[in-house]
Parts: sequence; structure tokens; C-alpha cells
Amino acid sequence: MQLTKDQIASANGNLNDHEADFNYLANKLSRSGTDVESLVKSLADFQVAVPSWALGAGGTRFGRFSFHGEPGNLEQKMDDVGILHALTQTAGAVSLHIPWDTPQDYAAVKQIANRNGIVFDAINSNTFQDQPGSKYSYKHGSLANTDEAIRAQAVQHNQEVVRIGEKLGSKSLTIWLADGTSFPGQRSFQKALAQTEKSCQEIYTALPEDWSLLIEYKPYEPNFYSTVIMDWGTSFMLANACGDRAYTLVDLGHHLPNTNIEQIVATLMAKGKLGGFHFNDSKYGDDDLTVGSIKPYALFLIFNELVYGMRHNPENPNLAWMIDASHNIKDPLEDLIQSLEAIQEAYAKALLIDQIALSEAQLNHDVVKCQEILQEAYRTDVRPLLQRARLSRGGALSPLAAYRSLKVRENLIRERGMHTVATGL
Amino acid sequence: MQLTKDQIASANGNLNDHEADFNYLANKLSRSGTDVESLVKSLADFQVAVPSWALGAGGTRFGRFSFHGEPGNLEQKMDDVGILHALTQTAGAVSLHIPWDTPQDYAAVKQIANRNGIVFDAINSNTFQDQPGSKYSYKHGSLANTDEAIRAQAVQHNQEVVRIGEKLGSKSLTIWLADGTSFPGQRSFQKALAQTEKSCQEIYTALPEDWSLLIEYKPYEPNFYSTVIMDWGTSFMLANACGDRAYTLVDLGHHLPNTNIEQIVATLMAKGKLGGFHFNDSKYGDDDLTVGSIKPYALFLIFNELVYGMRHNPENPNLAWMIDASHNIKDPLEDLIQSLEAIQEAYAKALLIDQIALSEAQLNHDVVKCQEILQEAYRTDVRPLLQRARLSRGGALSPLAAYRSLKVRENLIRERGMHTVATGL
Amino acid sequence: MQLTKDQIASANGNLNDHEADFNYLANKLSRSGTDVESLVKSLADFQVAVPSWALGAGGTRFGRFSFHGEPGNLEQKMDDVGILHALTQTAGAVSLHIPWDTPQDYAAVKQIANRNGIVFDAINSNTFQDQPGSKYSYKHGSLANTDEAIRAQAVQHNQEVVRIGEKLGSKSLTIWLADGTSFPGQRSFQKALAQTEKSCQEIYTALPEDWSLLIEYKPYEPNFYSTVIMDWGTSFMLANACGDRAYTLVDLGHHLPNTNIEQIVATLMAKGKLGGFHFNDSKYGDDDLTVGSIKPYALFLIFNELVYGMRHNPENPNLAWMIDASHNIKDPLEDLIQSLEAIQEAYAKALLIDQIALSEAQLNHDVVKCQEILQEAYRTDVRPLLQRARLSRGGALSPLAAYRSLKVRENLIRERGMHTVATGL
Amino acid sequence: MQLTKDQIASANGNLNDHEADFNYLANKLSRSGTDVESLVKSLADFQVAVPSWALGAGGTRFGRFSFHGEPGNLEQKMDDVGILHALTQTAGAVSLHIPWDTPQDYAAVKQIANRNGIVFDAINSNTFQDQPGSKYSYKHGSLANTDEAIRAQAVQHNQEVVRIGEKLGSKSLTIWLADGTSFPGQRSFQKALAQTEKSCQEIYTALPEDWSLLIEYKPYEPNFYSTVIMDWGTSFMLANACGDRAYTLVDLGHHLPNTNIEQIVATLMAKGKLGGFHFNDSKYGDDDLTVGSIKPYALFLIFNELVYGMRHNPENPNLAWMIDASHNIKDPLEDLIQSLEAIQEAYAKALLIDQIALSEAQLNHDVVKCQEILQEAYRTDVRPLLQRARLSRGGALSPLAAYRSLKVRENLIRERGMHTVATGL
Repeated sequence: MQLTKDQIASANGNLNDHEADFNYLANKLSRSGTDVESLVKSLADFQVAVPSWALGAGGTRFGRFSFHGEPGNLEQKMDDVGILHALTQTAGAVSLHIPWDTPQDYAAVKQIANRNGIVFDAINSNTFQDQPGSKYSYKHGSLANTDEAIRAQAVQHNQEVVRIGEKLGSKSLTIWLADGTSFPGQRSFQKALAQTEKSCQEIYTALPEDWSLLIEYKPYEPNFYSTVIMDWGTSFMLANACGDRAYTLVDLGHHLPNTNIEQIVATLMAKGKLGGFHFNDSKYGDDDLTVGSIKPYALFLIFNELVYGMRHNPENPNLAWMIDASHNIKDPLEDLIQSLEAIQEAYAKALLIDQIALSEAQLNHDVVKCQEILQEAYRTDVRPLLQRARLSRGGALSPLAAYRSLKVRENLIRERGMHTVATGL
Repeated sequence: MQLTKDQIASANGNLNDHEADFNYLANKLSRSGTDVESLVKSLADFQVAVPSWALGAGGTRFGRFSFHGEPGNLEQKMDDVGILHALTQTAGAVSLHIPWDTPQDYAAVKQIANRNGIVFDAINSNTFQDQPGSKYSYKHGSLANTDEAIRAQAVQHNQEVVRIGEKLGSKSLTIWLADGTSFPGQRSFQKALAQTEKSCQEIYTALPEDWSLLIEYKPYEPNFYSTVIMDWGTSFMLANACGDRAYTLVDLGHHLPNTNIEQIVATLMAKGKLGGFHFNDSKYGDDDLTVGSIKPYALFLIFNELVYGMRHNPENPNLAWMIDASHNIKDPLEDLIQSLEAIQEAYAKALLIDQIALSEAQLNHDVVKCQEILQEAYRTDVRPLLQRARLSRGGALSPLAAYRSLKVRENLIRERGMHTVATGL
Repeated sequence: MQLTKDQIASANGNLNDHEADFNYLANKLSRSGTDVESLVKSLADFQVAVPSWALGAGGTRFGRFSFHGEPGNLEQKMDDVGILHALTQTAGAVSLHIPWDTPQDYAAVKQIANRNGIVFDAINSNTFQDQPGSKYSYKHGSLANTDEAIRAQAVQHNQEVVRIGEKLGSKSLTIWLADGTSFPGQRSFQKALAQTEKSCQEIYTALPEDWSLLIEYKPYEPNFYSTVIMDWGTSFMLANACGDRAYTLVDLGHHLPNTNIEQIVATLMAKGKLGGFHFNDSKYGDDDLTVGSIKPYALFLIFNELVYGMRHNPENPNLAWMIDASHNIKDPLEDLIQSLEAIQEAYAKALLIDQIALSEAQLNHDVVKCQEILQEAYRTDVRPLLQRARLSRGGALSPLAAYRSLKVRENLIRERGMHTVATGL
Repeated sequence: MQLTKDQIASANGNLNDHEADFNYLANKLSRSGTDVESLVKSLADFQVAVPSWALGAGGTRFGRFSFHGEPGNLEQKMDDVGILHALTQTAGAVSLHIPWDTPQDYAAVKQIANRNGIVFDAINSNTFQDQPGSKYSYKHGSLANTDEAIRAQAVQHNQEVVRIGEKLGSKSLTIWLADGTSFPGQRSFQKALAQTEKSCQEIYTALPEDWSLLIEYKPYEPNFYSTVIMDWGTSFMLANACGDRAYTLVDLGHHLPNTNIEQIVATLMAKGKLGGFHFNDSKYGDDDLTVGSIKPYALFLIFNELVYGMRHNPENPNLAWMIDASHNIKDPLEDLIQSLEAIQEAYAKALLIDQIALSEAQLNHDVVKCQEILQEAYRTDVRPLLQRARLSRGGALSPLAAYRSLKVRENLIRERGMHTVATGL
């Protein structure tokens, strides 16, 4: 299934209200010095990757409630991303996960991507589950395993993933390790760290010259006493040990309670080592909820640092942006639409911050004013700007409303049936 | 020092921009069915108490940096609240703390209150510090002390506080206990609970018939292993053991990491036992930061429950609303202005929620829609509504801007000097 | 497979070292006033239930690594508990989970239980997963569902579980609800609570007269914004709304970070409302790790309260003790042996506390002494007491060593094969 | 006041019971291959510094309850450490804090130190409070201040502290910064980090050649939104930016909830960057409770890493060990005695771990065995070893009992009076 520009335009209907809203806001912002046109362009240019595993219903260890019309193969997943991108105009990339999404027919997959205006962003390996036919099990670890043969198998899998990515046009490999322990004493921390460093270096060395390595961190789960790459400091250390094209990847849900994530973002950008970003939201742990559904102000503060860094720290690569959420009780596509909207909203508000006034207030230690400046931007209703950016590219005025009025899910069920199951968690 | 309506009007200046903003928003909201006039009236009616100890600079255990022009006595504190109320029109009450604010001249204090349109809300006792001249120390507890004489002294102090409150027109007593332990084994949990229950009952029994008892809870600090009234469940149990006019008081900062506070609010309202509310914000513990400065969306969700409860649970009393924040690095009055604005903003957005559509979406298990409805309200820029509510009562268009343009702090310093110190923490 | 007393005795070998250790310790403890014989008897009498689902390898949402020789049906599960009990003499009960363990042949199951000296403790229902053939899905809740028909199905399932339990000799039903929300606004907190209360009352009313209802609480997972029964206060309120034979059940892993669990235990016992206890350990969330593997001192402090309550609060029922741990990377039976040992150790140490001296030190506010008294008990190496208790009932000197030397797992694999999979999570 | 060897010996009384206990344990340990003599020697050699500010009663922001007989000047503080060391034989160092402890008479202070066998460990600067007579305030930061003059004042203060330390024989400077923010937007994270790095480098460059710089980290308090040096990763990065003799200092209380501290210790040791260690215990935040009073098993696991690192990572310096606890409700000296005992206990148990068997079990992925090995050591009652180590140096069999029987506090009160107040927090 594919949505045409005409379908979307017809779903948009009359744009008069939008025009009025946009003009009101644009006038207001212009009066206080904002270059609205350039802001809308920044929004329109901003693209986020959709991970292939987010298109089916996720689950918890207590069970999984499936969703109807899930994509049953990679081609259908690509179609789903195409639908998202047609509506939102901000989902212009996909992030594959191997072996869940190993292409059977590269040409066909690339053709669907092209047709939908989608590129292949960072590609993900998987050494946290055993694959049928694998010689060794990752039960006791992969890149950090005490057993050299198992480490070698895991390194080799990563290299294979890179070869797949090369054929599709990816330029970076994301490594997330479940390696760790659930009980004190189970491993030597020092040895596990040394082995992880060595394995990462092996993967890094074999990378194509124009590729980057993105190293993700996480404090716990699925291991519940320790994780080898537990925090940004460890990832940063490993990236430094690999080389210039190795970077840290931040996933918003991978932090201990109360962590100041925006400060981590700022630190990594200051050091030229922020390589990728996984969006989601959470209240307790790695809850993988819809972006912006729990702590939208924190997201805005993080975007403030990202915007600052993108302007002032050119030594960082183009960030690999991705949504990493999971949806047990929402239609996966609707959930992604809400996430994409929340990301754009936070970005728009961060762009509205009066950075010159803020710097000045900071120098004057005018703490009250600093807060006012941030809240001035945050309290602004930026939805007309998001609409304008989408419309400028042929997207939907309201992607969710269009998705429903165009009966996308109903059509997908008709095409695919009720009981398809997407690969993934 | 006192601000006149004229001063404020002149600080407001030209209201054309406000008119345009308000009309734009009111039209938009009216089209989607909101009764804007009634909403503005609700905002204008909403009043929050300012605690007398929030008018000087707070501190941490590591030190205190004083602020200039702090109020040196109760009369000056009342003046400060008067200034706040004149500007914001939402600070129409004060909450005193005994013995920090024991009036010397009741008539004078009441006169200042009247002149400023301020009433006396819940009054607070203090059994967490020793007072000069006290016979017994609270080092090892007050209402929960193992020593009967010390418990009696603490009960008596509370009764005295009530007598002071009666003379001022207060109608409720707030008890916050520091009682607890810093080391395992230090106390018997069961005995401490039983003694606390008995002491609370003694205080309750002696209350005037039209008074309420508000029982605050807190998980830790200043004790670091256990606190006698550790959570809402314990407070609720104690309130039930006292009687109908005993209620739980929720302070936003008094929860363990990741607590769902809005659910606690809903539960207490459902049971008719929510009696008071202390506003502040925090990232780590009882940080006592400006309301809305860290988690404004959580504040909105809490207000959603409060609004629901105020409509559907008439068995709850009129809530004793209070700000309980502390300000080491901001001008205390500016900080309170920011807090009051954030409270009004959250209240306004909660009032905007389309409750009928929400109920329907909940019944349909349309989780995506439920989120959309909340976010529709939250994303709206409600500042013109707040301005209109303030203007309708003679307040400032922008209280902070007026405070600065009228040079309030400079005047206070001139009147009071640089080095006054307010009583409090 | 069944272990005979002879096999165990032969695995125990020479007991001289044990005799020497026990005598040394018994003499030492007797000198300071401990009645060692009675203490050993208390330990020998203490029995903990093993949940039927703990006998296979658990998993996380990221995958599951199976273990060889897992029990393939209920009879084999009962055999496993029999092995555990023969070795440890403290696993004299089993806790079934319906529908995972619905008996096919009641007589056969009871016969295995009798043969192994095992009774049937609290029985567990499951309304957090959909069962094949069920009319309605629990995707959007069970006892708290907005839909009356779904609530009725869930109530009925619980009643059916009771009928199964009756045939086996159980006397209590444990309810754990996954009901809750993952997104703000998804449900009305007040309505969900009211519906849960009503459903619990329906189940309670239909209980046999000699049965108890145990209501479990949990702050989050598998729902990540709110859980209907989120904390002890909510469970306590629901138990009170049901009646005298409804109690709260505490699972050690179901708390927010830093919760003082021992205080909750003390509170519930003081009010006669502690009905059951699930043991496990955790560092981050509901990690379900081996008991005592992370925070053994906290476990000791909890046992201190349990011992106190069992002595002073006869209004509480005989507690339903159970282990609720999960084991991805350990042999499940070895893991349970370690958990049982840790429970017995904490119990023994709690029994060693000099309660008279402790009360006195508490009255004297001698905080240093209070700590010394607890630590004196905790620092004692009580393993000879545990050995003596086991030996007195024909158990193993060292259950783990015996398990390995008797090659239990190897035998189970021979009997059952490599690739059996136990029902459960 | 000073305790003589004779006084202590007489307080020790008859040692027969100790002999019996020690022999029983030593025999048992020797049989399983432990070199008991060498272990006792390691314990006897292990020395911990007492911070000068721990000798008076601490406080919280809610108040302070003073203790009688507090040391009124530096000489009296040195006497207190002397008493501690005489009793425990493990407090052979003191850590001064400037300006709280600036010596008036260096010769006198050194003489007291010599007489008591005490050396001067790391010296601490203070830029988190304003000092009388200082030109600039640290209200808005010190080493990270936006204002160059204030940064310079703070750097200069640190250099002065070094000069004081040089005269006393210290060889390292500990920097703890309160610098940070309480509100989003208050500072630029990137600039604050850059300025901190620059200031640290200036201090480092001016250090004497045989001195080390120890950089402490802390996530929050007294700032409640962000702290400049928020975690080990930031401290590690700063230490690397300074040079070879700059290290990270770990304070046990300075971590977010659920942090795996032992893994941080292992990581820093693996990289040769662990320079100092502050002991305390906590349940919620930086609670500064007696060492080992809340999580003794975690302390043991940390010591396991420290022991491993001291053996395998010679590139780390001799660690600056210090207690950093505070005592509102205990006699400060008794509290320190309990802390010292808990440290020695954890160290002794860590030394008992069978490292060879552990390595082997780790290689075999025998997770159950790994846990058994750790617990075997932890469950051992090592108190006779601690007694033997103390006795071997002329210390007390039981320092706390001796302290009380020798009526030390009563004597101090007689000497110093009831109402002295020690400098410090």
C-alpha cells in the first residue's frame, strides 16, 4: 500500500484555518526577531529514521498482544515507513536490524526505498539473542564473552551486518550489547571491559573508510546486576579507544533514575563524540514509550543542547536520529506518528530560544531571566510551524487525522490479513 | 511598601497586543466548544497561599547566600505577599509558620492582610527544630518520641499554634513531622507509628469544630533511614484514625523517584481525603525548586486530577493550596511570581481538556486519541487567558516585567537595608 | 526422579566438621543467653513455597535461553519441588499458577505431593495474558477493565482458580493485576480504582469461608505509566474494602527505588493486614534475582520486622511465604537452593537479635547501641545452625553440594531430555 | 586528652575468649588454604583518614543538634583523631579542610600528629561557601564561574591550600565542586565544562611535583538541576585533561539511585585513574551515614574490586582513603569507630575471597558457583581477625566498649565544656 500526494491533499481539505493560525504566529514571532521562513525550512529538512522493528506490536516479558495488519516481511516494513513518510514528511530513513530484516532481494528493497524517498540510516546488529543455526550461544555474552570463539562469532556477525548495510547505502553500524551480569561475581569487570574494547576495535578496524561506529550504552536490562557498557563514560572511553569515527549513541531510555541527559548530550557534543540518538520516553526504566508522552520539557531541554551542538560543534558527525519505541497497546504506525510530531515540536521550540538573550542572562547570573527565555519558547504553540513544514513537502496537515480518514490500517489488514506477525521483540 | 493599582496599570502600558492575542485564542477555543469566559473566571478565582518562610533566601546544608532587602519581621513578610498579590492577583493567602512568625501585634498583622486582600490559610507548627527556652529537645523525635513528656510538649505546641491561627482566621493546621530514624534498629516502627497516631488524635480532638487537620508525608530527609509518616498510605491511615476533618496533604517534592503523583491525588480525592497541596518542583529529591521549572507536564497531569476531583468529589474540603519552594539563587519574590504563573498555566490547560471526548476515548480503548486530547490542551499557549484573568482583577499583564520595571526589589532594599535576614530555613 | 534419605545421607558424608562448628557456635550463643535448641527448631519448622513457574528457565523481553531437563508437566514440577524439599527441608509447599499448572489428574498430583511431604500454598490466577479459547482479551485490563463483560470473565477465572485450589487443599488465592496504563490519560484513575475494588469484592464474597484473599501490589511493569494497585497503601485500602480475610501481599521486587520495605512490613503487621510474602532480590526494578544475592542486610532487616510481627501481632494470618525469582542463567533448582539458604540465613540472624537489649537501647536513644545489637546478630556466621536444622529433618548438610554430587540435573536430563520447556514466563 | 597503651590494655581485660575465637577461625581458614597471618598483617597495615570536620555534630538544612565536648580548635580535633587511632589502630591519618582547619601553629599541630602516630592525608579546599573577607562570592560558582576574576580567586584558594598542605606533609589535594545549576538554562553546559577544565589545569600545573590532584564528582546537591562534575565519566575526562597525577575520587554517596559503584571502581582502576575514596553509607542520596550501616554487602563488593585493583593495577596511586560521614544523632567519635570497624570488616571479607576458584568459575560460566564463592567469604564472621589486627598494634579488643568504659566523652566534656562547636558543616 502506498499513499499518493493526491490522497493526502484530499485528506488535508481546506487549509484556511491553518493559514490563519500560521499567519498569526508568524507575525508574532517575526516581530520578536525570529526568521520564520528559515525555521520552517529547518523543520522540513529534519528527518528521523524509523527502526524496522517498531512497525509491529512490541511486548513485555509478561506477554504480547498482537496488532492486526502487521508487516510480514521487509518489503512490507518498507511500505509502512513509506506511509509514515508520506504523511509526516519527517520519516525519510529506515534503520534495519539484522538478522530480523536481512534482505532477500536487495534490488527490490532499494526500489521501494527510492520510490518512497527513504534512505538507509545506521544498521543494527544483534548479539543478544541466539540465531537458529549459530554455532555458539550468547547466553553468557557476546563481544565481552570470556570465550574467544564466541567473541569471534559476534565480531564476524557485526562485519556481516556491515556488508549488508553497504549494499543498501548505510554509513554507520550501531552496536548495542546486552553483555553484563545478573549476579555479583559472575564476571571480572576489568576483563569484561578489556574484551569489549578489543572486540570493538576489531569491528572498527574492519569498517569501510566512510563508515562510523555508534556505541550504545545502557545501565541494566536484560542483565540486572551490571552491563558492560553501562553509561556514557564507558561508551565514550570505548569510542576513544577505537578511533575518530567511533562515537557514542544516546538512547533516552538508557539511564538511571533522575539522570540529567541534556548535560550528557552537551558533554559529548563538546568533545565531538555524539554519533547517534534514539528517541523514546519513559517514566521508570527503558519503557520505550511514545516520544514526548511523559516528559516533553526534558525533550525540549535536550533539543536545546542538540541545536547548540549542531551549530557550534562541527566536529560531530551528522547525527543518526532514530525512534526507538515499542507499542503494545497502540497501532504502531499511529504511535510513530505521535513520536514524530513530538520530536518536531521539541525541535521547533528549541529553535525558538533566543540564544543571544540567553547568553547575556547567563553572564549576568540572571537565573530568573534564563528560565523566562526557555519558557517563552516552550510555551509557544508551534503546531502551525510544523504543519507548514509538512505542507511544504506535500505531507499531511494532521498526519494522524489523515491516517485515520484514509483508513490506512483497514487497508493494511485487508492486504495482509489479521494475524501477520512482524519480526522484532 | 505597597503597589497601587495605578502603578500596576502604568506598568501594563498599552494592552493592544494582549487584546489581539486574547481574541485570537478565545475565538479558536470558542469554535471548539470552550466557554472562554467561564474559564477565565475560574482562573481569576484561583488563589494560592504563599508561605511566610518563602520570602527570604533559602539554603542547603552546605550554606546559604543571603538576598538583599529580605523582610525582617512578620509585617514586612505580609507586605511582600501583598506585593505579590497586587501583581499576580493569585496570591490571596498567606500560610504562617510558628514560631518563625508568631505575631506580636495581631491587630496590625490583620490590618495589613485586609489592606492587601490576603486571608490566612493553613497554619504550620514546627517540632523539627528546638526552640530557645523549650524544656525538651526534639533531637530524637516529637509526636513519635518514646518519651511521653516530649510528645506532650509537641502536642501542646500544636495546640498553641491553633490558638494563634484562630486569632487570625485560619481554619486548618498542617503538621509535618521530621520524626524518623537515620539508622536501622534505632526505633520500633510499630511503636513509633502507634505513638504518632495517638499524638495526632490528641491534636485532632482539641481542634476547634470548624478546623481541619492536614497531615503531610515525606519519605526521607532530614532522617535518612525512615520517616514515621513516609507516604500517602500512612498519612491516609492516620487521617482515618483521627476523624472526618483530618486529611492528607500532598507536597509534590515528598516522593520517591518515579512516583506517579497524579494517581495518588486521584486516589485521595476518590476517598474524600485530600486536604492540602504544596507546590514546588524537583529533579532528585525534595529540591524545592520553582513550580513548573522541571516537569511542567507532570504538573498538568496532576491538575487534570485536581480539576476532575473538584468537580466530582465534593466530599473533599476546599483544598489548602500553597507554594513550598525555596530559592537560593533567585530573588524570592521573582521566584514566587514564576511559581504562581506556572500553577495558573497548568490549571488553565487542565481546564481546557475535553473531558467528554476523553471519557469516550477511554471507553473505546483508543489510547492514541486519549493522548491526543491531553496534548491538544497542553500544547495550547494559554498565556493570554492568564493575562486576561489577572487584568480582570487589576493585576499586572506580566507580573515579572512589572516587578522589574517598578523596581520593587530596589525599593525594598532602600526601605529595609542590604542585610536583613528573614526567619525560616 | 526422587531423592532418598539414604542418598542424601551418603552425600552428607562425615559430619565431624559440622559437629565442631555447631558446638563452637552453640556454646558461644548459649553463653550470651540464646536458646540454641529452640532457635534450631524454629529454623527447621520454617517452610517456604516454591512457585511452579520457577522450575523452568525464565526470560526477559529480549529473549530466553532455555535450560536442559526442564519439567514438561505439572507432575514433573512437583517432582522438582520434591527434590528441593528433600535436600533443603524448607521447601515444603508449592504455589500453583492457573492456567499454567491446571492439574489433569488431581489424585496423581496430590499423591506426588504427599509422597514428597509438600502442601499446596496460595494459588495464583492469571489475568495478565490471554488464554487460548478465551472470549475476551485482557489487552486493556482485566479486573479494572472498563468493559463489564471482561471484568466478569476475569472474576470468573479467579473463581475457577479457587475451585481448583480447593481440590488440592490450598487456603488462599493470590491476585496480581497487570492492569494499568502506559500513557497519561489512557484511563480514569478514579474509575479504574472503583472497578478494581468492585471486582475484588466479588471474588472475595465468593471465597470459601476458610480462604483468604491476598492482594499483591506493584508500581510498574508491564504497564509503564500507572498500575491500578500501585503500592501497599492501595492494596491495604482494597483489602479493607473486601473484609477481614483479605490481606496485602508484599513482593520484595515491587517497589520504587529506595523504598523502606521493612517499614511497610511493620505497618501492615501492626494493622493485621500482612497476608503473604514473595521473596526475591533486585538492584533496579522487579529483577527477580536470587534471594539475598544483592541486598542481604535489607533482607535481614525485613526479617527482623517479620519476627517481631509473628510474635506480637497474632491478628495476622500465617503468612504465605513464597519465592518469586526467575533464572535465566542459572540452573533453576540450584537457584532455588541458593534462595532458600539465604532466607533461612536471614531468619536465623533475625532470631538472634537481642530484642530486650534493643528495646532498652531504643528507649535510651542510644542509637549507636541499637546498631551494635543488630550488627552483632548479623555478623554472626549462622551456617552451622542452618545445617543442624536441615540435618534434624534428614536434609542435606550442604544442599547445593549434594545436588551436584548426586548429579540431579544430569539425571533429570536423562529422564526428560534436553529440550523440554516448562510453562511460565 | 590522650589514651595510653596501658589504659587500653586494662580496658581490654582478659583475652581468653578472643584467643579461643581467633584460634577456631584461624584453624578453619587455614584448612581451606588461607594464609591467616598475612591476612591479619594486611588488616593491621590498612589505615583510613579521618576528616577533621567529622569530629563535631553534623546537620541538615532543617537544623543541627549539637553534641557535647566537641573539639573547639584544630589541636583538639587532632586529639580526637589520636583517641580514635589509639583505640582502633586504623585511623592513622587526618584529612584537613581549609579554611575550617587552617593551622595557627604548624609545629604544635605536627607535634600532636607525631605523638599520636598520625599523618596528613589529602587536604581539601572549599569553594562552595563564602569566606569572611573574600572579595568575590561563590553564589554562582567557583572554578566554573563565568566571571574570570572569581575563577581566579578560586584557583588561588586551591593553591594556598596546597601550600598549607605542604607544610604538614600532605601529598594530594582533593577538589569537590558545588558548581552547577538549579534551573534549566541557568548556565551553558559546554562553557561550564570548558571553564572547569581550564581551572583544574591551572591548579594541576602549579602542584608540587610529588603531589596528586583528586577530582571528586557528585550528581546533585547543593545544586538541584545539574552539577558541573556530575559523574565518574566527567571526572575521568577532567583528570585526563590535567595529566598523569590527576585522578578521580569516588565518594560512595555521590551517585544516582541504583548505580553499580563497584563497576565504576573497577573501571577506574583498570585505567589507572582511581586516586581516592570517601566512605559512608546511604539509602536515598548523599546521606552521609555510618559506613556499613545500610548496605554492607555492596561495601564488600566494592572492596572486592579494590583488593583486585591494588594487586593488579599498580599504575594507580596509593589510594587516599577517607571516611566522609556526618552524625547528627550519634557521638561523632562512636560513629567513626563504627565506620572504621565496618571498613575493616569489608576489607577482611574481600581478602578471604578465593580468587583462583572465582576466576575458574567465571571461565566455566558457573554463575551459581561464583555467587557461592563470594558468599562463602561474606558469611564468615571475621571479627576475631579484626581484633587480632588491632591487638597486634596495641589497640582495643573492642574499640567501642573501651571508649565507653574509659569514659572518653565524659572526659572530653570535662576538658572542653558542654557547648563547644566544631567548625564544619
